[in-house]
Amino acid sequence: MITPGHTISRITDALPDIKISTEPEDLVCYGFDASGLEGVPSAVAWPKNTEEVVRIMRYAWQNEIPVTPRGAGTGMTGGSIPLKGSIVLSCEKMNRLIALDTENLNVIVEPGMINGRLQRELEYLGFFYPPDPASMNFCTIGGNVAENAGGPRALKYGVTKDYVMELEAVLPNGEIITTGVRTPKGVVGYDLTRLLTGSEGTLAVITKIRLRILPLPEEVITLLVTFDNLEASGTAISKIIASGVIPRTLEFMDAETIAAVESFKPVGIPKGVEALLLIELDGHPAAITKEAAKIADICTSLNAEVKMAEDAAARAKLWEARRAVSPALYNLSPTKINEDIVVPRNKIPDMLKYLKRLSEESGIKIVNFGHAGDGNIHVNIMVDRNDAERYRQAEALVKEIFNMTLDLGGTISGEHGVGITKASYIGMEIKKHELDLMKGIKNIFDPKGLLNPGKIFI
Amino acid sequence: MITPGHTISRITDALPDIKISTEPEDLVCYGFDASGLEGVPSAVAWPKNTEEVVRIMRYAWQNEIPVTPRGAGTGMTGGSIPLKGSIVLSCEKMNRLIALDTENLNVIVEPGMINGRLQRELEYLGFFYPPDPASMNFCTIGGNVAENAGGPRALKYGVTKDYVMELEAVLPNGEIITTGVRTPKGVVGYDLTRLLTGSEGTLAVITKIRLRILPLPEEVITLLVTFDNLEASGTAISKIIASGVIPRTLEFMDAETIAAVESFKPVGIPKGVEALLLIELDGHPAAITKEAAKIADICTSLNAEVKMAEDAAARAKLWEARRAVSPALYNLSPTKINEDIVVPRNKIPDMLKYLKRLSEESGIKIVNFGHAGDGNIHVNIMVDRNDAERYRQAEALVKEIFNMTLDLGGTISGEHGVGITKASYIGMEIKKHELDLMKGIKNIFDPKGLLNPGKIFI
Repeated sequence: MITPGHTISRITDALPDIKISTEPEDLVCYGFDASGLEGVPSAVAWPKNTEEVVRIMRYAWQNEIPVTPRGAGTGMTGGSIPLKGSIVLSCEKMNRLIALDTENLNVIVEPGMINGRLQRELEYLGFFYPPDPASMNFCTIGGNVAENAGGPRALKYGVTKDYVMELEAVLPNGEIITTGVRTPKGVVGYDLTRLLTGSEGTLAVITKIRLRILPLPEEVITLLVTFDNLEASGTAISKIIASGVIPRTLEFMDAETIAAVESFKPVGIPKGVEALLLIELDGHPAAITKEAAKIADICTSLNAEVKMAEDAAARAKLWEARRAVSPALYNLSPTKINEDIVVPRNKIPDMLKYLKRLSEESGIKIVNFGHAGDGNIHVNIMVDRNDAERYRQAEALVKEIFNMTLDLGGTISGEHGVGITKASYIGMEIKKHELDLMKGIKNIFDPKGLLNPGKIFI
Repeated sequence: MITPGHTISRITDALPDIKISTEPEDLVCYGFDASGLEGVPSAVAWPKNTEEVVRIMRYAWQNEIPVTPRGAGTGMTGGSIPLKGSIVLSCEKMNRLIALDTENLNVIVEPGMINGRLQRELEYLGFFYPPDPASMNFCTIGGNVAENAGGPRALKYGVTKDYVMELEAVLPNGEIITTGVRTPKGVVGYDLTRLLTGSEGTLAVITKIRLRILPLPEEVITLLVTFDNLEASGTAISKIIASGVIPRTLEFMDAETIAAVESFKPVGIPKGVEALLLIELDGHPAAITKEAAKIADICTSLNAEVKMAEDAAARAKLWEARRAVSPALYNLSPTKINEDIVVPRNKIPDMLKYLKRLSEESGIKIVNFGHAGDGNIHVNIMVDRNDAERYRQAEALVKEIFNMTLDLGGTISGEHGVGITKASYIGMEIKKHELDLMKGIKNIFDPKGLLNPGKIFI
């Protein structure tokens, strides 16, 4: 590996027509992401197209310089944190919608396309791209693919990998590959598309993405259900799913989350509420009206209060509040250790009870919200990074929570990936000889170990 | 590689408590499959559980004997044809439904479970496993996973890979791996589940499968639409999808297929019909009634005749006829070269016109049917294998059809896999350096090249 100084002069000389910066302010700005971690790259490159990505990768390959691809830096596990001396490859300038095929229901985008922008452009034309991470107004489709992002609508519609049809990507040695097919079916060779999806930028740099889209659902009903009892909300979740209804979202917030949101983006949730569910149904009006009534019956029988959003504006306000949860929590404490566990959905009441006890016993605030319908709870341990003793205690809780999650048949990461922050825990979930297979695959794609090093496997 | 005779005596000695046969009649019966190809194994093993699979694989690993896993042998591309001297590992005895988790909507089965049996058991309890290959009453879930099987309902519900949550599998060296998660979301490490799904038994022997299931749809409407003009049927397919309706099936048969089926399992389709569509909608009664009316409008405006199946019995009769297509075609000629191309669905009219011209020009009968809604057409070139000259001509047509398929943006295999019969064509679709990545992955899982050799890559 060559020294940063050496890299800097050579890369700008070697690739003079590609936008590359070695200015300290760029190196700082592109050194951190939403995980709160930081790294210092030696250069930031903004390729405009696949050909420029190829040239950057070839240069890095020949000079053995690590490269970290980057979308919008909204990742929670440090997947876009660069290794010291490496090149950050920002996909910001590759943000076009290349083609929309309404007859075959798919769209081709560049990796830097913002998820929310794609959502809005499609919606305007009567189409629908379901994956909707909470950061959808900032995060990129490329980042979504790299992390296999989820979101509230995953309950009914699945996650990013369920929409990726075809990928164009550049290997660490600069070769371009295309994977997948542009048709709904295709079984020729191994599924490299699914392998790249969720590989956290460690196998190849994604340069084009063909996504499956759907017709826009005819109608949407949004219900806000408030409980004065935490456990009742867990029971409601199980009963709703067991009733045969699959809402498109079934979001959960506990009392602490509600309080934080109310002080940040008030939506008028009454005091004394212990938990709320934000439930959304979509489809044919007659079908969802009947489903909404079924859900209301279940919830009111558990002493909950059910309100229906009256119009699109009321619905938008509720979702704005939901998407504000993550930043709002910083009002509770300067640091949050944000976990992303998933348990089988009928284990949610057990998990919530366990977290409550853990918080009481440790005296550390634990705040929970998330995608209850698919068992995906964002567990936030609220501390102050500057209080070292307390922070260490909080970190110890993470391991206990992961143990409980795995005991209940769950996974330690539902949609945030492994990145840096979970890398030391991966062995809790995946056995050594299984990890060896994954490392073997990494080595086939990236024999020099240059692409996003230090992530997933340590 | 040791000689068959040597293998025989040693394997039965080494594993005396596992059911293993070296009887000639077993070797013949387990040497062929629905592809029409044949091989001669030296032993057939019927393990009862994972532990027996492990012991067979370890024995094969130590003695460097190839192993070909086998479900029901209904595959169309020779994926279960054993190499001479190898062990056929039949999953027939591993056919249990291990667990049904109705709260979390998933089921665990052994690989030898028959797809249709699972369908019926789930339906009885109010649940639904969508993937429905035409051979569903014979084929196994293990084979479905190995081939990533599709079926008519793929249009709305996707294919096998969209339902596989978790796999237990035995590596060629006898190690057991588990992949995936039992929750709807999970992003820890590379997606080995999707990699194994569709790998045609070349990476590991699948021993347990956790499948996602759905609540049974409330109601189903089945429409039989007949056209006196082939092109109009293609136009109808495009228009239906463009209308925003996604039926659960949209099956197509041309005149020759209809004639063959009518003489095999008559359902009373009038003479003079050039094409038919078998369309099925499912969901809330009000929603699908409206959708059915929309489809009927589109079709009648194209001069088609639309009939609705009056009851479950009428529906079952139509589907029985559809599933009889493949065997019925043998009434037209002793051999069929059965292809499984997919084109973007708006290219179906172009493809059908092209195939008609090709048939007229070559004088060789080409019969088409399939899953029109997702662009997946089964193209059958009707010949007699004993007429060598004619057979060679037919084989030349295959390559022409594949070229046209790829020119239209399609794939040469939608659901049958590559196996042996398409292995020599794989380079038409996948570039050499992409195939090298796949071969690299194969080598990570199977460094001795013992598992199902001679398939996919040649």
